Amino acid sequence: MSGIDPFILRRLPDWLAFRRDLHRHPELGFTEYRTISKLAQRLRPLGYTLRLGPDAISREAIIGAPPASAIEAAKAQALASGALVEDVERMPDGTTALIAELRRSEGPIVAMRFDVDALALNEDSSDMHRPRRLGFASAAPGLMHACGHDGHATIGLAIAEFAAQNDTSWSGTLRLIFQPAEEGGRGARAMVEAGAVDGVDLFVALHLGCDLPSREIACAAKSMMFSAKWDVVFRGTAAHAAGNPENGRNALLAGAQAVTALYALPRHGCLATHVNVGRFQGGTARNVIADRAELEIELRGEAAAALDHMERRARWTLDGIAAAHGCELVVTEMGRTIGAETSPPAASLIRAVAEALPDIERVHDDWPLGGGDDAAFFMHRVQDQGGLAAYLILGSDLAAGHHAINFDFEEADIGIGVRLMAGVLAAATNGGFSFSDERRRTA
Amino acid sequence: MSGIDPFILRRLPDWLAFRRDLHRHPELGFTEYRTISKLAQRLRPLGYTLRLGPDAISREAIIGAPPASAIEAAKAQALASGALVEDVERMPDGTTALIAELRRSEGPIVAMRFDVDALALNEDSSDMHRPRRLGFASAAPGLMHACGHDGHATIGLAIAEFAAQNDTSWSGTLRLIFQPAEEGGRGARAMVEAGAVDGVDLFVALHLGCDLPSREIACAAKSMMFSAKWDVVFRGTAAHAAGNPENGRNALLAGAQAVTALYALPRHGCLATHVNVGRFQGGTARNVIADRAELEIELRGEAAAALDHMERRARWTLDGIAAAHGCELVVTEMGRTIGAETSPPAASLIRAVAEALPDIERVHDDWPLGGGDDAAFFMHRVQDQGGLAAYLILGSDLAAGHHAINFDFEEADIGIGVRLMAGVLAAATNGGFSFSDERRRTA
Amino acid sequence: MSGIDPFILRRLPDWLAFRRDLHRHPELGFTEYRTISKLAQRLRPLGYTLRLGPDAISREAIIGAPPASAIEAAKAQALASGALVEDVERMPDGTTALIAELRRSEGPIVAMRFDVDALALNEDSSDMHRPRRLGFASAAPGLMHACGHDGHATIGLAIAEFAAQNDTSWSGTLRLIFQPAEEGGRGARAMVEAGAVDGVDLFVALHLGCDLPSREIACAAKSMMFSAKWDVVFRGTAAHAAGNPENGRNALLAGAQAVTALYALPRHGCLATHVNVGRFQGGTARNVIADRAELEIELRGEAAAALDHMERRARWTLDGIAAAHGCELVVTEMGRTIGAETSPPAASLIRAVAEALPDIERVHDDWPLGGGDDAAFFMHRVQDQGGLAAYLILGSDLAAGHHAINFDFEEADIGIGVRLMAGVLAAATNGGFSFSDERRRTA
Amino acid sequence: MSGIDPFILRRLPDWLAFRRDLHRHPELGFTEYRTISKLAQRLRPLGYTLRLGPDAISREAIIGAPPASAIEAAKAQALASGALVEDVERMPDGTTALIAELRRSEGPIVAMRFDVDALALNEDSSDMHRPRRLGFASAAPGLMHACGHDGHATIGLAIAEFAAQNDTSWSGTLRLIFQPAEEGGRGARAMVEAGAVDGVDLFVALHLGCDLPSREIACAAKSMMFSAKWDVVFRGTAAHAAGNPENGRNALLAGAQAVTALYALPRHGCLATHVNVGRFQGGTARNVIADRAELEIELRGEAAAALDHMERRARWTLDGIAAAHGCELVVTEMGRTIGAETSPPAASLIRAVAEALPDIERVHDDWPLGGGDDAAFFMHRVQDQGGLAAYLILGSDLAAGHHAINFDFEEADIGIGVRLMAGVLAAATNGGFSFSDERRRTA
Repeated sequence: MSGIDPFILRRLPDWLAFRRDLHRHPELGFTEYRTISKLAQRLRPLGYTLRLGPDAISREAIIGAPPASAIEAAKAQALASGALVEDVERMPDGTTALIAELRRSEGPIVAMRFDVDALALNEDSSDMHRPRRLGFASAAPGLMHACGHDGHATIGLAIAEFAAQNDTSWSGTLRLIFQPAEEGGRGARAMVEAGAVDGVDLFVALHLGCDLPSREIACAAKSMMFSAKWDVVFRGTAAHAAGNPENGRNALLAGAQAVTALYALPRHGCLATHVNVGRFQGGTARNVIADRAELEIELRGEAAAALDHMERRARWTLDGIAAAHGCELVVTEMGRTIGAETSPPAASLIRAVAEALPDIERVHDDWPLGGGDDAAFFMHRVQDQGGLAAYLILGSDLAAGHHAINFDFEEADIGIGVRLMAGVLAAATNGGFSFSDERRRTA
Repeated sequence: MSGIDPFILRRLPDWLAFRRDLHRHPELGFTEYRTISKLAQRLRPLGYTLRLGPDAISREAIIGAPPASAIEAAKAQALASGALVEDVERMPDGTTALIAELRRSEGPIVAMRFDVDALALNEDSSDMHRPRRLGFASAAPGLMHACGHDGHATIGLAIAEFAAQNDTSWSGTLRLIFQPAEEGGRGARAMVEAGAVDGVDLFVALHLGCDLPSREIACAAKSMMFSAKWDVVFRGTAAHAAGNPENGRNALLAGAQAVTALYALPRHGCLATHVNVGRFQGGTARNVIADRAELEIELRGEAAAALDHMERRARWTLDGIAAAHGCELVVTEMGRTIGAETSPPAASLIRAVAEALPDIERVHDDWPLGGGDDAAFFMHRVQDQGGLAAYLILGSDLAAGHHAINFDFEEADIGIGVRLMAGVLAAATNGGFSFSDERRRTA
Repeated sequence: MSGIDPFILRRLPDWLAFRRDLHRHPELGFTEYRTISKLAQRLRPLGYTLRLGPDAISREAIIGAPPASAIEAAKAQALASGALVEDVERMPDGTTALIAELRRSEGPIVAMRFDVDALALNEDSSDMHRPRRLGFASAAPGLMHACGHDGHATIGLAIAEFAAQNDTSWSGTLRLIFQPAEEGGRGARAMVEAGAVDGVDLFVALHLGCDLPSREIACAAKSMMFSAKWDVVFRGTAAHAAGNPENGRNALLAGAQAVTALYALPRHGCLATHVNVGRFQGGTARNVIADRAELEIELRGEAAAALDHMERRARWTLDGIAAAHGCELVVTEMGRTIGAETSPPAASLIRAVAEALPDIERVHDDWPLGGGDDAAFFMHRVQDQGGLAAYLILGSDLAAGHHAINFDFEEADIGIGVRLMAGVLAAATNGGFSFSDERRRTA
Repeated sequence: MSGIDPFILRRLPDWLAFRRDLHRHPELGFTEYRTISKLAQRLRPLGYTLRLGPDAISREAIIGAPPASAIEAAKAQALASGALVEDVERMPDGTTALIAELRRSEGPIVAMRFDVDALALNEDSSDMHRPRRLGFASAAPGLMHACGHDGHATIGLAIAEFAAQNDTSWSGTLRLIFQPAEEGGRGARAMVEAGAVDGVDLFVALHLGCDLPSREIACAAKSMMFSAKWDVVFRGTAAHAAGNPENGRNALLAGAQAVTALYALPRHGCLATHVNVGRFQGGTARNVIADRAELEIELRGEAAAALDHMERRARWTLDGIAAAHGCELVVTEMGRTIGAETSPPAASLIRAVAEALPDIERVHDDWPLGGGDDAAFFMHRVQDQGGLAAYLILGSDLAAGHHAINFDFEEADIGIGVRLMAGVLAAATNGGFSFSDERRRTA
């Protein structure tokens, strides 16, 4: 590993600047026009073959896309802040995905997944918050990189640079997958459908943070949650709130009772479950019985059985409450994640690399992800094809938990992530690791 | 009365066209730029002295105004659809009020109030709905004249024409008050503060519909509701919904529990009360514990004691639920209506006029308003000054109740309304009615 | 009236003692064994013909009876505190009704209804509470005369004495109806079925209190509520609350959500409505998902349409919430009251009598009852037969509202009630009032 | 082990009869008068020294005891069904605990804990339920052995017989602890206070079932839940539900809203939590605003931090909702369990014994208990004293989950339990196991 240290040291300032630029310009799932274009602008000169838009993600398989107006607004915003017209035009209808591939020689195909989307949150504006203090807080009201995907994207760029400029340490093909819309579990499945991991021998995804301290890593994420994301609409009947409320069918009240009932769903005795209603919008005017309420809900379970239980009960609840109010109910699935397990040989490979890195003080076999990630769809596809898949966790001291408005991670850990991923690429492809042996062993 | 019939018959088609034009262009409270400008354009040539904007309404006394961005958007929309620049410029900051006065002679001042605002509702788009069928349904998505204020404004215009062109039937001064933001009980108080009813001898407001059939009128509205309109904000703490929900303080759940609790407030045993949460907006992203929820609520009571009870209990409820979730609570009063009673001499005058009109088949002493109206603030001010005040109800067969998306009234009743109001103006000022006698009698 | 004053003055101490004895021994609906027996013991020597038990109330038509074990316990308690065995034995299965009739001559039949049941409340044990201070508070834990029926029963006894001992002031037949189970609206209908008001020319019921002050009366109760009383059972599935809650179907949670939803039912715009869940019992053990919850609910409406609305929406709510939890639902009607209106000639008669009584300072045409009374079933039957029916309100200063644990009324008002009812009896039958004329007039 | 097989085979029918007799006579926590007396009657002739009542459990340390009337009723019931007067008299105030000790020689003290209480559940009365079919279903309405404690008590009796009659296989002292009130986590702490495990070298508790199949055992229970058990009272103000509900403070509605809010408490992201409201009782009469509601709630967490979180949030919730309704709140702690971990040397000992038993097909290192057990208090005290403690799980095929009304276990597994516990007693004391070595090793 010693060969890459000077390179990383030299490049790190630029990478951090790149990360801070992304942090200032967060984009929601399926509107990452600027982010993808910025990545493409950096990757093209390095010699990567780029698949952009519908070449990287199946338009038909996308679920949970934002409305066309939001996509258009995002395009305009992206163009006004550095995205290239030719890039934006190649990603119609929210197909903001990018696959960058570099083929050095015959040999294994190693794919790495980096998710790039931000969240709908108002970033903390207090001086306690480092991005604010240092001037790289979100410039987009209501949007924020609060889950570290700006860091992920940056690691992806750094790996691309490393691989392009270090031709001796690895062989085969490196495929970098920049995925939109990981939040909500929407982007991966549609990229799988477009063949994003076809032919891959080793797939690696990573997440930074997850309550693992800086300078520690885990070779496998455990408890990757199964989840379902639903948009729920109650449709009632408007009426004058004082004149004739008896004629109304109160969709807002139905929605509010659904919220309290959903959080109170009977939980599973042994398997972890979660439920959240992250957004609620109902009614239009103070003195009108509301005829519409919209909820964005998310159900999670540690295993398929737990999610099944939550989905069945949530459906009972929604149906029952709609009936109680004489409202119509429309439930639309907007996303879904499944669990996945890191292939043991891949975990061993990661452990070996990590233990050789002086910056990493502790290596865990596994660590709870504390949520779900639709990277699981890539992992299943790769494993089904006979390849190996891994999901590793890169520790980082956090200022606050993921999705908090004052989330912030230790930027130096980006360097550790680059070292680790570069090490994995090298170790998997420089001859010391035999994919065919491993397949035989685990068959 | 026979003198005005041909005039009304001749003018009615134009008035209905005016009403339908207003119906196509509904504007919310404090954004009625087009409506007021259209009225001003018609009233100026008739010889009325106009007070517009801050001359008609106290800027400082306005509560519950929309955000500046909404006001600017409404101005632009109004200018694009027929409002005059000079009118719009004279109504800064949502001061969309108009007072038009015509002085014919010495004598009593008669004021008539017409409210002109619309509601935030999506108008029915089915062919069952007459405005849709006949092509004058709202052209503004999410906005609708669903309470008949387009009819009120039209009656005001018609009375203005009648009074300007019939100089023999009345004397004294006619003051026409075109009020913004009756919905939400916001406009009247601020117009009172600007002196809108100073010096008035007789004040008359009217409402069409109210479950009273066409060709019937009521000389006084009873059960005018006391009401309070509050904007409520719960502020919590965002957190990852699955990773560390224990760190969150769920403002959306607090808001939902508040909704269910508010509708369940203990009601008064003898006095009618109402509660409504007409709007709820909470959270930003599906997988984040929501850190903010906003509610628009309205409390009503048949008497001050009943509203007091509802306000006290609602406050307990909001405080308690905020505490239960560790959330901060901000409650802002956005509007208020009070009850008022028609002066008996004014009711007698209206009865006498109505009984003489062949189009009116039944005259009621009173009729429940089925809600509140901040016209009560005008009425109290006039009565406090020693004048008379009335609130009459003009029956009209409705297609659906007030505030329903398929609300529609019988347009022919506009003609009856004009006859009635014109008759009241004449009867109050042509010498047969002595304000000083009435004052003495009721003193 | 002057003839009866000395008699009332002489007898009042005994009547108050009787009332206090009843107050000490409250009995719930359909278990008034002691109360009825005590009344029977006093009425027999006065010459009244008594109909007891199934002769006075239809066993088949009883709804909402308590369980057999409660009836047996009440019998034992009654026998231990002064009830006669022969009386108790004549009232099997909770048929605790008594009709006492005295025929003086040919002439009209006047019926008076007195309800005798108490409530399930723990009487206030503080020294602020007069019955406690004076030593006549309830001796039965959990039971209390908190609605004044002890006073009603006493007035009935007093009238019986007056009528038996004053043979010159009236004629015809006096029928005294002592009704069980007015609370819950259960006793009257079954007495009607047994013919309790067959042949009646004038029926009078009264209630003391109702927020009308002492020395005032109202000739007619207005706003007699329509009401429905339901027992509701949710049946779920028990499970270990921590081990496998996912297998449970939580009837207690379903019941709790039903409570919050029922209180939040959309109310009628113009007609008063009420809803109450007066009792809730769910679950058996802290660490078991409850498999059963029982609710006692009551719905009221000022008119049939309002009650219909509340019943329809309550049923939606219960069905929907049961479905939401996968619970079974059983709804049983336990009582029902309807509205009724006092016959105008009867109200006039009452006014004439009341205005002649020096103790009564103010006579109202009507006054809100503030609830319902199944006396309405008697009234309808009498009016359907061509007779007159009245429900008057006897004012009384209250220490606290009806059904409060510190309810108490002004005992002196019992004397006023006796005078008034005796006066009505005399006026209706001594020749000055012609039932046939009145019938002709109102036909 | 072969030596004990014939003994067990011979005695098993009697033990099963004993178990079925207990099953027919279930008794709630702190009222196990018959159960303890029946055990005492069998243990006395075997030579055991018995500590009964206050000698076995600290009267002062008892929390969550039933009311005195319930204790007296249970005593009467016990005496009527085979309990001895002298036993019952020795257990005043619900001190229904028994410690039976047999000293064979110098040597280690081995204590075994058997909990003996039943649950407040109505046992399944369908023919699908084996105890019903075979005639040993509960004879006590509302009570049921639905957690297998009848089996535990029987294993305790069987071990007592085995130890008394097999003097060669073990040495030292055997102490059998028959604990009341495990349900609700109430009995153990008070027995610890009475010195029940003072001086103990090895403590073993067991539970049968827990979703582990028959013929399998686990050497250690994992995920023993921390829990808190609270009784919660809301005190409001009664009022007539229709007459003047505005004067009421509705404790039942407060309670219902608390139930829905408690189930919706924010859960911990990583640590399992549970909440249950197992009992709710509110109000007294249908048409009265309820002035009191009582809830029995239970909070659990996989670790102290998780329980802390749940307790803090539940307290916020209860306080906030009480304030929202203007009700008083009283919260009383009725029980508490903590987590505990089996000492590794004890687990190894159990594994060694189990693996030698032909009836046991699979031995697990650990298995989730699926709840809590206050045996943890014994375990901590023993471990604090330097002894070893274990909590093992005895697999048993169940007809339904613990606490279900059709719970039933495979009775043959009682024989396996006896073999296993007897084996542990022998192995721990016959010289092959050195307590001092183990202590040194784990120090």
